[in-house]
Amino acid sequence: MNKVEKRVQDTAETIGKDIIKVDHFLNHYMDVIFLEDIASLFYDAFKHLEINKILTCEASGIGIAVVVAQKFKVDLVFAKKRTLDYINPSDYKAEVFSYTKQYSTLFTVNQRYLLPTDRLLIIDDFLANGEAMRGLIDIVKQAKASVSGIGVVIEKGFQPGGQWLREQGYLLNSLCIVDDVVNGQITIREQ
Amino acid sequence: MNKVEKRVQDTAETIGKDIIKVDHFLNHYMDVIFLEDIASLFYDAFKHLEINKILTCEASGIGIAVVVAQKFKVDLVFAKKRTLDYINPSDYKAEVFSYTKQYSTLFTVNQRYLLPTDRLLIIDDFLANGEAMRGLIDIVKQAKASVSGIGVVIEKGFQPGGQWLREQGYLLNSLCIVDDVVNGQITIREQ
Repeated sequence: MNKVEKRVQDTAETIGKDIIKVDHFLNHYMDVIFLEDIASLFYDAFKHLEINKILTCEASGIGIAVVVAQKFKVDLVFAKKRTLDYINPSDYKAEVFSYTKQYSTLFTVNQRYLLPTDRLLIIDDFLANGEAMRGLIDIVKQAKASVSGIGVVIEKGFQPGGQWLREQGYLLNSLCIVDDVVNGQITIREQ
Repeated sequence: MNKVEKRVQDTAETIGKDIIKVDHFLNHYMDVIFLEDIASLFYDAFKHLEINKILTCEASGIGIAVVVAQKFKVDLVFAKKRTLDYINPSDYKAEVFSYTKQYSTLFTVNQRYLLPTDRLLIIDDFLANGEAMRGLIDIVKQAKASVSGIGVVIEKGFQPGGQWLREQGYLLNSLCIVDDVVNGQITIREQ
């Protein structure tokens, strides 16, 4: 078990069958020492690729992505979440539906910040249905840049995002895959 | 001139008389090496205080706050921006009006993450009218914690947030204070 799997196993809270709460170290309260452990795990997984930029999205991806960017010694760009009345017409954009919040938002990235020569590592905290990731990949395609790898801290293995990304041929590294939540008990996939 | 003042002077774009755009290094595209310079400036300003936690808010404050938290070797908590239909009733909360976006959002922080013993350094990218800062301070008061210092990267000196905070007795450190924008020319306050 890596440090993320252990921390999820030992401390994550659950609500019902599909909500895994890690507010206490990842996406509300942030343990920055632990973020450095996370960044090291992503670095080991992707250091053989010539990553030149990190891509993430607002909001909770940003803190993780910054520490990953430090580790790779590259810059990062985060997609902004916008409402339709507040966008720059020339931005790359993708509509993203949130199953958690039950509404759509727009991800936008200024065209200046993604180049056709970019070899991107996409970073996010969670992967579930994969809607946010699909939006980020769509934006990368609009910029004619390349997705070299995708790193997520926690994948919900019982939702289809991870399987879809792997089937599409993306190099996905999920530091912790939760296969099941039953009566508050979390089952983590061995990998 | 410190590094932030120089970078703002040399590279910031302006729109009209009051919008200063630093998307290219601070709040969309992030230059992580420069974030470390920013964190060092805040560290020099606040290291004599016994800061034990960093507080910021979604979204663009998070990246800066993480690097500041690394420098201080403390954890951080970021206030979430919520809509009214999506909050936990027990959270600390404050309504914050955005003059830029012309609507209000709620900042929320889970009660577990702010303690009466906390000596907080509040970090944000911009200070203008001070609405976001007022919301964060309000939340700190609800938690009976202390604001030891406030660090912002860019203060709009021609808007009232900074003056209000100083009059209230807060220890505010703005790395760059813009006093004026006239025909795209930025005037930076000497300090």
